[in-house]
Amino acid sequence: MDEFDFIRDLLAPLAGPQGLKLEDDAACFTPKNGFDLVITKDAMVEGVHFPNGHYGGHVAEKLLRVNLSDLAAKGARPLGYFLSLAIPKAMDALDLRGFVTGLRDVQQSYDFTLWGGDTVATPGLLTVSATFLGQVPKGHMLRRNGAKPGDDIWLTGYIGDAYLGLQNVLGKRLNPVPKPEHIWHWEEAYYRPEPRLLFRKALRAHATAGLDVSDGLLADAVHLSQVSQVGLNIMLGDIPFSKATQSWLYQQSHYNEALEALLSGGDDYEILFTAKTENRGSLLSAAKKQGLKLTCIGQVTAAAANVNCRDKNGQEVRFENSGYKHKL
Amino acid sequence: MDEFDFIRDLLAPLAGPQGLKLEDDAACFTPKNGFDLVITKDAMVEGVHFPNGHYGGHVAEKLLRVNLSDLAAKGARPLGYFLSLAIPKAMDALDLRGFVTGLRDVQQSYDFTLWGGDTVATPGLLTVSATFLGQVPKGHMLRRNGAKPGDDIWLTGYIGDAYLGLQNVLGKRLNPVPKPEHIWHWEEAYYRPEPRLLFRKALRAHATAGLDVSDGLLADAVHLSQVSQVGLNIMLGDIPFSKATQSWLYQQSHYNEALEALLSGGDDYEILFTAKTENRGSLLSAAKKQGLKLTCIGQVTAAAANVNCRDKNGQEVRFENSGYKHKL
Repeated sequence: MDEFDFIRDLLAPLAGPQGLKLEDDAACFTPKNGFDLVITKDAMVEGVHFPNGHYGGHVAEKLLRVNLSDLAAKGARPLGYFLSLAIPKAMDALDLRGFVTGLRDVQQSYDFTLWGGDTVATPGLLTVSATFLGQVPKGHMLRRNGAKPGDDIWLTGYIGDAYLGLQNVLGKRLNPVPKPEHIWHWEEAYYRPEPRLLFRKALRAHATAGLDVSDGLLADAVHLSQVSQVGLNIMLGDIPFSKATQSWLYQQSHYNEALEALLSGGDDYEILFTAKTENRGSLLSAAKKQGLKLTCIGQVTAAAANVNCRDKNGQEVRFENSGYKHKL
Repeated sequence: MDEFDFIRDLLAPLAGPQGLKLEDDAACFTPKNGFDLVITKDAMVEGVHFPNGHYGGHVAEKLLRVNLSDLAAKGARPLGYFLSLAIPKAMDALDLRGFVTGLRDVQQSYDFTLWGGDTVATPGLLTVSATFLGQVPKGHMLRRNGAKPGDDIWLTGYIGDAYLGLQNVLGKRLNPVPKPEHIWHWEEAYYRPEPRLLFRKALRAHATAGLDVSDGLLADAVHLSQVSQVGLNIMLGDIPFSKATQSWLYQQSHYNEALEALLSGGDDYEILFTAKTENRGSLLSAAKKQGLKLTCIGQVTAAAANVNCRDKNGQEVRFENSGYKHKL
C-alpha cells in the first residue's frame, strides 16, 4: 500500500464534504454566522504517549478523544479534524485498517468528520497529530483565566483510573494483584477517555474558568491557578476515585505516595473548572441528567498562582512531583 | 528547558491574539463574513523530508513555506497556523532558538501568526507538522477539478532547482562540479521555496484548476489530470529551467534520465494550473508586474486522466518514475 492508496481507500470514506474527498490537499469551510471557531492540536508519539509497537485502533481512538476533550473543556462542539500520520515500516496493512476503524468509531460516536491531513512514511516511531475545529456561540469559549476568589472548584468523573491503566498496559505489576474487572476498567479509562462534550452547555452557562486534566490533576490545577492568578484550595478527601481505584488505594502501605501517583499521573481527561457558588444546583442537576459524576473538590482563594491541598483534618499536604513535563 | 519554558519564552512571542498567549491549549477565532476558510496540514520527518540531524531554522522555514505554498495554490491568504513538534533529545536549546527564528522570519515575510499547537519530546526523529488556516472570498477557492479541454497549462517559476539542491544537501557529487553560485541557488530553492502568495488574485480570477508541485511536476500533473478527468499535453521544450539548472542539464550525457530526475524530483513548490486561452494576456501581465516567471507548458485535452509529454519534434517521451510516493 502507498500513501495514495491509503488515503483513497481507507481515509477518504471518513471525509466530510469540507474535506473535498481528500483530493485537494486542503479543506474548504464556510463558517456559520454568530459562532467562534475553537481550534486545538494535540500530538502523540510511540513510546511516550502509548507503548512501543501499539499501532491499532486504540491509538487512533485516544488521539481523537484527547483532542475532543480539549474542545469539551472549551465548551465547544466538534466539527471536523485534520490528521497527520508519520507511519513506521513496522505498521502493516492490518494495523492501518485497525487504526482507521478507531477513527471511524470515534467519528460516529461524536458526530464529526475528517477534513484533511498528511500521511508520510517515517524510519522512526509512529507519530500522530490531529488538529480539531469546533465552534461555540460567539464570545462563549471557556478559558483558563476567569476563576475568581470564592468560586467552587469542580471536577467531572474520576481521577487516577488512566494512571493505573497505563501501569497495566506497560506490564508493571500492581500490588496486591487487582481483580480482572478492575484492570479492564482502568485500561478502558486509559485507552478510551470519555470527552465530556455533553456537558458543554452547562460549562458555557456556569463555569468561570476550566481546562481538561491531561498532565495530572495537580499540574493542571497549577496551570489554572497561574493563568487565572488565583489560589486553589483542594480538599483531598473530596477527590473522587472509582471503586476499582479506591480498592487499590486503600490497600497501599505508602498511602500518600500512592495518592500522589494518582493525582499526578495524568491522562484523566476530566474537566477541572470553577464556578460561582450560586450555580451549584444548576451544575449538579445538569450533570445528574447526563449520568455524569460531578464533584466539588475545593474553593478558589485570592492567593495568586498557588495550589494548596488539605487532608480531612485540614492539614496541608505537600507533593513533590506535580505532573508530567516533556523535557526538551 | 522543558516544554512549558519553551512555549512561554520562545513560542508565545510569535502568537497572534487568536492564540490567547498560548495559555489555553486552544485558539479562538471569529471568522469574517463573506469568506471561506481554507485549511491545510503538512508534516515533515527527519531523514525523509530533510537530512538527519538538521534541526535549525531551515527546517522551520521549509515547514511553513511548504504549507503556505498549499494555500497559495488555493488562491488563499494565510491567517494563522498551529505547530506540532516532536523534539528529539539531540536537539538542544540553540537548535530550538534557531528553529523559532526560522518561524519568526517566515511569519514576518508573509504576515500571519502562530495560533497554537503542541510540543512533545520524542525518543525518535524530529517530526513536525503545521496546520494552516487561510481565507478566500466565499466560493473562490481554486481546486484541482476544474480543468477543461482546450485550457492552457501554466507553471510559475522554475522546475528542478530544489532537486539539485537536495543532492548537494545530501552530499551527493554532481558531475561536472557545479559553480558555487549554482549550488547556493539550488540549496536556497530547496530550503526556502517561495510560496506564490502574491499571485493568488490572478489565480482566483483566471485559473480553472491548480495545485502546487510537491511530489514532482510529472506526478502532480497526473494528480491534476485524474481529479479533473482530463488529459495534459506537456511540451518538454517549454518547461522552464533556471540558468544554473540548464547549465547542469545540458552537460549530462544521459539527457533523458537527467530530465526525468528534474521533472520527478519534487520539492519545487511552484504552481501548476490551467486557464482558458482567452486569459493568456491577463495572466502574463499579472505575473510580469510581480516579476514572477510564468510559462505556458502545454494544453489540456479530452483524454481522461492521461499525461502526455512531447519533445521539440512532437515525439512522445515516456518516463518510468513519475514522482515520490511514501510506501506504507
